[in-house]
Amino acid sequence: MRDVMPGFGYRKIANDHAARLGEIVTPRGIIRTPAFMPVGTGATVKALYPEQVKAAGADILLANTYHLMLRPGAERIARLGGLHSFMRWDGPILTDSGGFQVMSLGKLRQISEEGVQFRSHVDGSRHMLTPERAIEIQCLLGADIQMQLDECIELPAERHEVERAMNLSIRWAERSRAAFESLAKPGQVLFSIVQGGTDEELRRRSVEALVAMDFPGYAVGGLAVGESHDIMLATLDGITTLLPDEKPRYLMGVGTPIDLIDSVARGIDMFDCVLPTRNGRHGLAFTWQGRLNLKNSCHADDASPLDAQSKCPAARDYSRAYLHHLIKSGEFLGSMLLSWANTAFYQELMTAMRSSIAEARFASWAEETKARLSRDNKI
Amino acid sequence: MRDVMPGFGYRKIANDHAARLGEIVTPRGIIRTPAFMPVGTGATVKALYPEQVKAAGADILLANTYHLMLRPGAERIARLGGLHSFMRWDGPILTDSGGFQVMSLGKLRQISEEGVQFRSHVDGSRHMLTPERAIEIQCLLGADIQMQLDECIELPAERHEVERAMNLSIRWAERSRAAFESLAKPGQVLFSIVQGGTDEELRRRSVEALVAMDFPGYAVGGLAVGESHDIMLATLDGITTLLPDEKPRYLMGVGTPIDLIDSVARGIDMFDCVLPTRNGRHGLAFTWQGRLNLKNSCHADDASPLDAQSKCPAARDYSRAYLHHLIKSGEFLGSMLLSWANTAFYQELMTAMRSSIAEARFASWAEETKARLSRDNKI
Repeated sequence: MRDVMPGFGYRKIANDHAARLGEIVTPRGIIRTPAFMPVGTGATVKALYPEQVKAAGADILLANTYHLMLRPGAERIARLGGLHSFMRWDGPILTDSGGFQVMSLGKLRQISEEGVQFRSHVDGSRHMLTPERAIEIQCLLGADIQMQLDECIELPAERHEVERAMNLSIRWAERSRAAFESLAKPGQVLFSIVQGGTDEELRRRSVEALVAMDFPGYAVGGLAVGESHDIMLATLDGITTLLPDEKPRYLMGVGTPIDLIDSVARGIDMFDCVLPTRNGRHGLAFTWQGRLNLKNSCHADDASPLDAQSKCPAARDYSRAYLHHLIKSGEFLGSMLLSWANTAFYQELMTAMRSSIAEARFASWAEETKARLSRDNKI
Repeated sequence: MRDVMPGFGYRKIANDHAARLGEIVTPRGIIRTPAFMPVGTGATVKALYPEQVKAAGADILLANTYHLMLRPGAERIARLGGLHSFMRWDGPILTDSGGFQVMSLGKLRQISEEGVQFRSHVDGSRHMLTPERAIEIQCLLGADIQMQLDECIELPAERHEVERAMNLSIRWAERSRAAFESLAKPGQVLFSIVQGGTDEELRRRSVEALVAMDFPGYAVGGLAVGESHDIMLATLDGITTLLPDEKPRYLMGVGTPIDLIDSVARGIDMFDCVLPTRNGRHGLAFTWQGRLNLKNSCHADDASPLDAQSKCPAARDYSRAYLHHLIKSGEFLGSMLLSWANTAFYQELMTAMRSSIAEARFASWAEETKARLSRDNKI
């Protein structure tokens, strides 16, 4: 395996107990870690302009292979010059393998050793996603950080089922790597994905097998899929202590601000989640004082902004009364402003984590911040 | 009547046959005419940030009294400091009287000499809109240019019905003026509305009665409500020749780019219409080459932007292929970009009209431009 890809590298700058401050160097720019990647499912971070995502402080975006392969199609994006120019994002892009979405299709998909056969949610057409095709698509998109195809099963599940999926994911990691080595461009990298549910022994075997293959980065999949927060954290403890210190670790699809803080405390470097934009569209705002529901009528006459100290215009310049009005009226601008404010808040959160690690005060910062955030104003 | 309101005035700079170049001076800034006012129905120009509306070149916005009185409520907006700060627009705002929307409610409303009783489309609650209440609401909103309550009837209609509505509108103009004089702040003005359907004689009588009352501006209502383009223009001819040269003329709720050109040719100074934003949300783009339907698959592989020469980022920087993808996928960003590009196009159109009047070449510019625009690519 190409241990150090040309143009790609992870550098740990500092650590505070298990929490890590670092940077991932890519040909398209540096990713400050711990990093939160806004999700651009269909080649757009919903309701945001790419310039707003950048200005909010995001160094890297995530895009979804499953959605893009179906619409507008990976070959089309390749013909148009790749995903970066298509969606006007010149920073690094990480793509998932499509596996997670395909697995969620339930009866619309069938798993075999070869891959996953499924029907499109858009038009019902039949598709086959194999480890090789998942890599081919990600290369057509031009993704900087690519993900192996894996099988992510919903919890709770029988242990033998979790084990079977974990072992299949290891075999798919090998096939993904082979495909990647023949298709990828210099500077692009492939991460593998640790599976094994909440079973410590299965997770350990998954980590050992993947680390033996020496990937440039490791993702943790199959968490935050139904288990409790405490079990998620315990599982994470068992994984991150086994992962090599000199490679980035990415916890897929997680999560709330408190999930992020608790996971950084356990040595996670990268996150993605739809929460900031999805919650924004539904009228929920993340702030340093906890979560606000802008639909509630207590905001109707409140002339104060979400956060007068924020650098984000959406959080700083518009009154809660106006946001309440926009959300109640179903106006586009309500979704636009709250998605923007939440995206900026998540980046502020990552910045605060990085500072507190650099200054070796992560634990106290985390305790204080979690107390503030978990107040959850319920308003 | 206060003929020249403190801080408000219209100045004609030039004319080219009937087409007029001018400016309306208000305490909140100058409105270059002919002017197109983007529509901010619910205190937001749909899917645009106020900064984008301003940067597109709009000097003034329109907001709808009917929508705002129901949600969030005029008294609430007044408590919050008025509509300008509520929606973060510091330029002039024109509000309609609410009459047009209320009249469209059909069986949900009942007209009497006193006013219009109606049920809210939001929650079914009962409301009474009188000429006095319409002015009170517009003053609570803090509108710079206010409109009298009028009765706008759908065409075709019996002549005696059109005459009745026209005469009622004249009596309401008097009552509106009396209310306005007791409630308005310096610098705010009230326009009256010419009615009379497509009947030349009725329109003439409406104009004469209103001009005798000497308003600071005159609107033309009840057009583009079902009659043909030619009849609309003939009616307009009969009206604008009777209106005083030294007052601005506003054609309400109109229209397509060609409607605007033909109306400016007849001496209209101000317009408003939801077309740029509504069409944008539905995937239709206005360009100098005619109208494009971005839903059509011919755009799926087109890497060119809507208009490489535009100063608007939405028209200049994003490919048609990307816009097609966003619209087909129902992504917010598709509506955001096309609403923005269309809003900017309408302002470019007004700028081009103003230049061609200033340079006394309006007729030839109009002929050439209408030929280009009416090609309607049907793509």
